[in-house]
Amino acid sequence: MPAMIKELITKTRSYRRFDESRAITRDELLEFVDCARLSASAGNRQPLKFILSSHPATNEKIFPHLRWAAYLKDWPGPAIGERPTGYIIILGDTTVHPAFECDHGIAAQSIMLAATEKGLGGCMIASITRDTLRAALNIAPTLEILLVLALGRPAETVIVESVPPSGDIRYWRDDEQRHHVPKRSLDELIVG
Amino acid sequence: MPAMIKELITKTRSYRRFDESRAITRDELLEFVDCARLSASAGNRQPLKFILSSHPATNEKIFPHLRWAAYLKDWPGPAIGERPTGYIIILGDTTVHPAFECDHGIAAQSIMLAATEKGLGGCMIASITRDTLRAALNIAPTLEILLVLALGRPAETVIVESVPPSGDIRYWRDDEQRHHVPKRSLDELIVG
Repeated sequence: MPAMIKELITKTRSYRRFDESRAITRDELLEFVDCARLSASAGNRQPLKFILSSHPATNEKIFPHLRWAAYLKDWPGPAIGERPTGYIIILGDTTVHPAFECDHGIAAQSIMLAATEKGLGGCMIASITRDTLRAALNIAPTLEILLVLALGRPAETVIVESVPPSGDIRYWRDDEQRHHVPKRSLDELIVG
Repeated sequence: MPAMIKELITKTRSYRRFDESRAITRDELLEFVDCARLSASAGNRQPLKFILSSHPATNEKIFPHLRWAAYLKDWPGPAIGERPTGYIIILGDTTVHPAFECDHGIAAQSIMLAATEKGLGGCMIASITRDTLRAALNIAPTLEILLVLALGRPAETVIVESVPPSGDIRYWRDDEQRHHVPKRSLDELIVG
C-alpha cells in the first residue's frame, strides 16, 4: 500500500466556504458514515447515531444553528452561494450509554478523511445552538448533539504555518481571504 | 487518488496481541504524531501532548498500568512475547486549555491509520490506572492522561461481524483465539 495517509490528513483542512455547484448525494454521506461505523468505539459500545442532510431544504434548516470561525470576528460564516451542500450530525445515544468518551472524534476524523478522498471537505463544528437545532430537526431528547460536520467542495485556500513566537494559535485571513492556520511544532508536542 | 481510506479503516482493528520481533522506532512514532499534529483541533488550540515509548525498558514501565479487553474475563492481557513494542501516550495539557473536547479521538484515529499503513496496529486504551502510570513515568500534574495507544505488529485475527439479534456488542474469542467484534449495521446508526 503506498504511503498516502499523511497526504490525505494534510489535505484534510477545516474548510468553511464551498462551491455550491457540487451537490453531495445521500449515498456519499452513507459511505462516509460507514467509515465511522468501522472505526474504534470505547468498549465497542457504538453509541453514536447520525443524521444526514444532502438536500437544500434540510441544509437550510441546519445552517442557522451553527457558529462559524470564532476567531474571525468580522465574518459571520459562509454567505449564500458558498455554503455547505451536505451535513452529517453526530449524536450520542444516551439509551446505549450515558457517556461517549472520544468516539465522536474518532468517527469525525474517519468521515472527514473519506470526504477528502472524494474531493470534498468541511469543518467539524461543536459550537452549535443545540436547543434550536434540536427543535428544527425534531431530534429526540435521548440523543445528545455532539458535532455537526459541514461538507462541500472547498472553495478557499487554507495555509498551514508555524505558530509565531507570540504563541498565538488563532487562525486568520489575509487580504486575499486565504485562511492561515498556525500549527504547533512537533517538538512542542513531544514531552517524553 | 485511489479509493483507499475505507480499506485502511477496515484494516485498522483493535489488536491486543503482537509479534514482538517487530520493533518500532522512535522515528516511526514521531511520524505518527506528526499525522495527529496536522489533524483538526477544537478552536485550533492544540492542547495535546505526547509521550513516546519504543524501547523495551520504557514499554515495560507502561504495560502494568493498562487494563486490557474488559469483556474477556479470563484473559489478563497479552503475555510476555506478544506485548506491544511501542506506545504513544496522549496527554491533555491543562495549561493550554482545561478541556480537550474530542481532540484525542481525532488524534488517535490519525495515528492508528498511519500505523496500519506501516504494517502496525494496536489498541486505543482509556482504561488506565492513571495514578500509577503518572508516578511510573513522572508525568507532570498539569498533564491529564487521556489515552494510551499500544502499538506493534498484530499477531491475531480480528473478525468484524454483525451484532446478533440479542443486541450483545461484547467482543469475544473463539476456540482458535480469533477475536470477533460485533458491529452495528449502518441502518441502525442512521436516524435521519
